[in-house]
Amino acid sequence: MIGRIWKDIQKINFFGKSLAILYRILYHVEKSISVISKKKGGFTMQMYDLVQKTRRQEALTDEQIQWIVNGFCHGEIPDYMMSAWMMAVCCQGLTDAETAALTLAMRDSGECLSMESVGGVTVDKHSTGGIGDKTTLLLAPIVAACGGFVPKMSGRGLGFTGGTIDKLESIPNFSTNLPMERFLEITKEIGCCVIAQSGNLVPADKKMYALRNLTATVDSIPLICSSIMSKKLALGADCILLDVKFGHGAFMKTPEDAQRLAEAMVEVGKRAGKQCRAVLTDMNAPLGANVGNALEVLEVIRILRGEVRNELSELSLALAAHMLSLSGKGSVEECMDMAKQALDSGNALRKFAGMIAAQGGDPTVTEHPELLPQSAAKYTAVSSKDGFIASIQSEEVGLACLELGAGRTANSSEIDYGAGVELHVFVGDAVKSGQPLFTVYGRTEALCKKAAERIFACMEITTEKPVKSPMLYQVIS
Amino acid sequence: MIGRIWKDIQKINFFGKSLAILYRILYHVEKSISVISKKKGGFTMQMYDLVQKTRRQEALTDEQIQWIVNGFCHGEIPDYMMSAWMMAVCCQGLTDAETAALTLAMRDSGECLSMESVGGVTVDKHSTGGIGDKTTLLLAPIVAACGGFVPKMSGRGLGFTGGTIDKLESIPNFSTNLPMERFLEITKEIGCCVIAQSGNLVPADKKMYALRNLTATVDSIPLICSSIMSKKLALGADCILLDVKFGHGAFMKTPEDAQRLAEAMVEVGKRAGKQCRAVLTDMNAPLGANVGNALEVLEVIRILRGEVRNELSELSLALAAHMLSLSGKGSVEECMDMAKQALDSGNALRKFAGMIAAQGGDPTVTEHPELLPQSAAKYTAVSSKDGFIASIQSEEVGLACLELGAGRTANSSEIDYGAGVELHVFVGDAVKSGQPLFTVYGRTEALCKKAAERIFACMEITTEKPVKSPMLYQVIS
Repeated sequence: MIGRIWKDIQKINFFGKSLAILYRILYHVEKSISVISKKKGGFTMQMYDLVQKTRRQEALTDEQIQWIVNGFCHGEIPDYMMSAWMMAVCCQGLTDAETAALTLAMRDSGECLSMESVGGVTVDKHSTGGIGDKTTLLLAPIVAACGGFVPKMSGRGLGFTGGTIDKLESIPNFSTNLPMERFLEITKEIGCCVIAQSGNLVPADKKMYALRNLTATVDSIPLICSSIMSKKLALGADCILLDVKFGHGAFMKTPEDAQRLAEAMVEVGKRAGKQCRAVLTDMNAPLGANVGNALEVLEVIRILRGEVRNELSELSLALAAHMLSLSGKGSVEECMDMAKQALDSGNALRKFAGMIAAQGGDPTVTEHPELLPQSAAKYTAVSSKDGFIASIQSEEVGLACLELGAGRTANSSEIDYGAGVELHVFVGDAVKSGQPLFTVYGRTEALCKKAAERIFACMEITTEKPVKSPMLYQVIS
Repeated sequence: MIGRIWKDIQKINFFGKSLAILYRILYHVEKSISVISKKKGGFTMQMYDLVQKTRRQEALTDEQIQWIVNGFCHGEIPDYMMSAWMMAVCCQGLTDAETAALTLAMRDSGECLSMESVGGVTVDKHSTGGIGDKTTLLLAPIVAACGGFVPKMSGRGLGFTGGTIDKLESIPNFSTNLPMERFLEITKEIGCCVIAQSGNLVPADKKMYALRNLTATVDSIPLICSSIMSKKLALGADCILLDVKFGHGAFMKTPEDAQRLAEAMVEVGKRAGKQCRAVLTDMNAPLGANVGNALEVLEVIRILRGEVRNELSELSLALAAHMLSLSGKGSVEECMDMAKQALDSGNALRKFAGMIAAQGGDPTVTEHPELLPQSAAKYTAVSSKDGFIASIQSEEVGLACLELGAGRTANSSEIDYGAGVELHVFVGDAVKSGQPLFTVYGRTEALCKKAAERIFACMEITTEKPVKSPMLYQVIS
């Protein structure tokens, strides 16, 4: 009945007669004749009420939130209602309980894995992403070398430098598409395994994310939180470490915003019965020296081989220590000592080689990194003056790498695994005129020069030594 | 290109990698290769930015708002984007300039009438609607009798008692569907004409309203204001009087909310170059004695014949005085005297009869109101105690009339023109036990008794005489 009435309203509402009253009256009439929940019109009406509640900051019940997620997944709630609800969430927020209910309803929209067959405490990590972030490739073998278990599903990249999966696929023959059984087997045997996402986990998030991306409802803490945590919970690891980045190369611009997101995610993790902790880390400059797929694997190997120590290795050790501590291996300090020992002894390198071999790749790259793909051309930029590196805009570095072919710009685009940039200096370093600042790698020298200009322009060199902020800003548990 | 990328994002976004950054980068890449505005993807991207701006309370330009309205009307902006934008408007508001731009863009989405052929200053009135509101039927002939011109387009009713058009159609053979030329001719000759809405005015509002009705984006001052004012401006009268109701039978619950809406509408009217004024009026109790289509026409005729004077006649005179004063006929006080004279002299009655005749109806109803449709059964409720009428819940009276058949509950439902209620007492009146309170009219006595119970339950009788608030609360110009 209501369906017909809506059509009628379209025809009748000419002079803005207060249809909200009419609507309310019709609603009571419908309710009083008990058809509301039995007919298709009931969906429309019920969703209207729930959107209205969220708009008015009246909390929904767990069941109401489940109803929204299920209705949207099953196509009963149309996109235009869901986008209105999500915009109301963006503007008015959700309570902790609502955010948790949303996350669990999304988790339950698809398959949920069991990690039982691994036979130990499993620990997962999530990073909100950033330029040059290759911490997964370092901490997975470090944690594995300390007796932890890291079953990791990662995404492919879009834009700049590719995701963790693209980085790993720059290793000849490395396979990131494994059956679930093999994924868990390798995790059990080696202690770590990194594969590409499975299509069966959290279909609600895929559908909701696609709509958020079209309706400017991306940057909302409850929606980001439920998107990330639903996938973490569906994967099913016992412990979850969240690396929440802030800065101009990150989604959250300020530590305060990052803290709010981190707190929301930790809260949801705890409500779902997980060991959960978050660290806030600085993403104002690229992480580590190299940006670009094979170049990032190269930096990882150099660190695992003990040839390089930098902010990236420090951060990876700290993250690994938190993961081990979450898994019950001791205090964060004790776990930090274990992690350092694993890195310095070469045990982590051996775990990395073991994981590469188990996933079909050539483990000799860890001995002969020159086996990794290399670009045909390169170009090194030098400093035009004396001074100190005050800032390196990570977003611009990402864009330059995208132009070099290190990332995807469309579905069809091929990645140039060798392309990217190697920084020779970091924020806070003193530089002399003529000193090499960075080397760009790409298909042609012209491409390299163009990217070099862009990166050069985003490096600020000052006469005063800048004050450096710490990489790991805060721990939230 | 972007279209393909969005599909890709759906597949790739598994672990919540910060796609907002990617999006921003892709956007810059697209812009830098100048395809953004030429491809279909450009629409998506541009709308995303505008939704984001409104979410962040950054004002849009007139051109951007026109672009949204046109894009939505032409089907280029999909419903899910528009509903997200409208929800952002609901939550974050719009500036006066944005509200005006939205109103004008909506007005220009369809046909705009010219009132030139009327040959005098035309004045329109809008009421936000209420139970028993038949002021249009009174003030149109009063203003016409004073030399004013009232070209009025009204809506059909949905729910309770039917709209002005349904009320007029209870007069035998009265036609509310006239060609535009005839509408303007009658306005010129008689001074007033009331017809049903034309489908060619403001198609943007129809489309937007239908979506708002499904997405809980109805009660937003900028959206209500633009919906009402775009239609008033498309009709093209020189002056506009806005009757904004408040109270529990109205859309705006408090005088403060009503004031905000009134101010927004007057501001838009002025920006569009119209003489525009608003009055805030009380809608806590039904307006006048009768509710129901033919019953309301009957009350109008009784007032025009000088047989009845009540709050309804007082309010209609006040509204007519404001309309005349807006038309340049003198001060509000002078116009009030003219209006009273028109009513008391029977000139307004003659104008009403003239309008009925011009629109094909039987003007003898003004002499013989018994020619109006009458219901088969009636039932009179009496007071169970001595006291004072403290309140009459207008919403409940409306619901009771709907159940009696005085209003539509679905597209197909037939209206019982004779059905409704006649109140014998008003708020503030003293009543004795056994004194008749009201009479209900309907198809059967059972129906009448049921409705009477409902109305009886919503009449509050107290021992203390209640303080009555004035009908006309405030004038905003």
